[in-house]
Amino acid sequence: MQRGKFISFEGSEGCGKSTQIRRFVDWLRGTGREVLVTREPGGTAAGEKIRHLLQHDSDGEGLTPESELLLFAASRAQLVREVILPALDRGVWVVADRFLDSTTIYQGVGRGLDREAVQRINAFAVGAALPDLTFLLDLDAATGHARAVAASGDQHDRMESQPLAFFEKVRRGYLELAAAEPSRIAVIDAGQGIEEVFDDLVRTFEARFTATTA
Amino acid sequence: MQRGKFISFEGSEGCGKSTQIRRFVDWLRGTGREVLVTREPGGTAAGEKIRHLLQHDSDGEGLTPESELLLFAASRAQLVREVILPALDRGVWVVADRFLDSTTIYQGVGRGLDREAVQRINAFAVGAALPDLTFLLDLDAATGHARAVAASGDQHDRMESQPLAFFEKVRRGYLELAAAEPSRIAVIDAGQGIEEVFDDLVRTFEARFTATTA
Repeated sequence: MQRGKFISFEGSEGCGKSTQIRRFVDWLRGTGREVLVTREPGGTAAGEKIRHLLQHDSDGEGLTPESELLLFAASRAQLVREVILPALDRGVWVVADRFLDSTTIYQGVGRGLDREAVQRINAFAVGAALPDLTFLLDLDAATGHARAVAASGDQHDRMESQPLAFFEKVRRGYLELAAAEPSRIAVIDAGQGIEEVFDDLVRTFEARFTATTA
Repeated sequence: MQRGKFISFEGSEGCGKSTQIRRFVDWLRGTGREVLVTREPGGTAAGEKIRHLLQHDSDGEGLTPESELLLFAASRAQLVREVILPALDRGVWVVADRFLDSTTIYQGVGRGLDREAVQRINAFAVGAALPDLTFLLDLDAATGHARAVAASGDQHDRMESQPLAFFEKVRRGYLELAAAEPSRIAVIDAGQGIEEVFDDLVRTFEARFTATTA
């Protein structure tokens, strides 16, 4: 049996990632492939406990950035070895809603942790499970910020208080990663309409995979 | 106020560490110093949850060695920044029952993880909180194994089935660490009687600290 491929989606809040993942996964299943979608932190028994710990540390003094990074990495290490690698071995295609690049950006840029240390810990956590293809849904910071505020619901205050400069740092960080790994990371213009973005995903995907693995 | 000092105790099971820590901490308090004793994983609200996760992952498929290492590191990162460094800043002396060397040995040697990766993750987790002095209670493997089996109580089967070769690997690993960092790690002959071991601890301590920091 042919081994499955591993695809991750990345991008700032407001980039339309959730919508595009749903459409893309539907389409991918329509091609006859078996597809597994993962999210992090979580996805395993241990990972769900870690997710809870990351989201509800209200009885503590708050997690330090270092501890937060290591917990994300622990959840990912478990998910990779318990779920992702076995699925790929069975010929299943895996689509991850955020993977190691989110940690590089949000823990590195967002929490000000040393980026090289973050990347080393990432590499240890993911082991052999580097994505075959990563879609970076790239959006100018002002549009992303405005969309994120509009879609934020009961998180409205938190999102509105997130400075635009943070979105700019996130975007710049992602584009630097894409420039450093152009063979893995495909930059998709997420400022287009939903249909156009989706068409770009499919075109990029087909250029990468169909000829050899369809 | 003078900053406190940080002392860790290391050694294989059966080396008499718990007994010696109790005596040493009593003695250290008797010199008029304020002393805090830490254990890992745990020691903070987040750390206690991580401890629980490490000890009770019965509903999952079992933690991977990588995830286990990252969880130990996350607990330690939190303990260092929430408890140890603030205590040292207040002039408190901190005594740790196992610290980063245990991870290097038990996760590196014990689980077969790459030792350099383990040491890098350790270094990230502890940050500035490297012990000023580490006591390695060194014991020949056969004696350690026999003592550990005798003291194992309801863990008797688990301990008896632990091969002697594992104790030998642990001992060798610790001695290599001590040889690499002789200014931090003091090797204490734990094959002596309880009084003699304790006397060695105090003598080593006084040679290291009393002249400059009493």
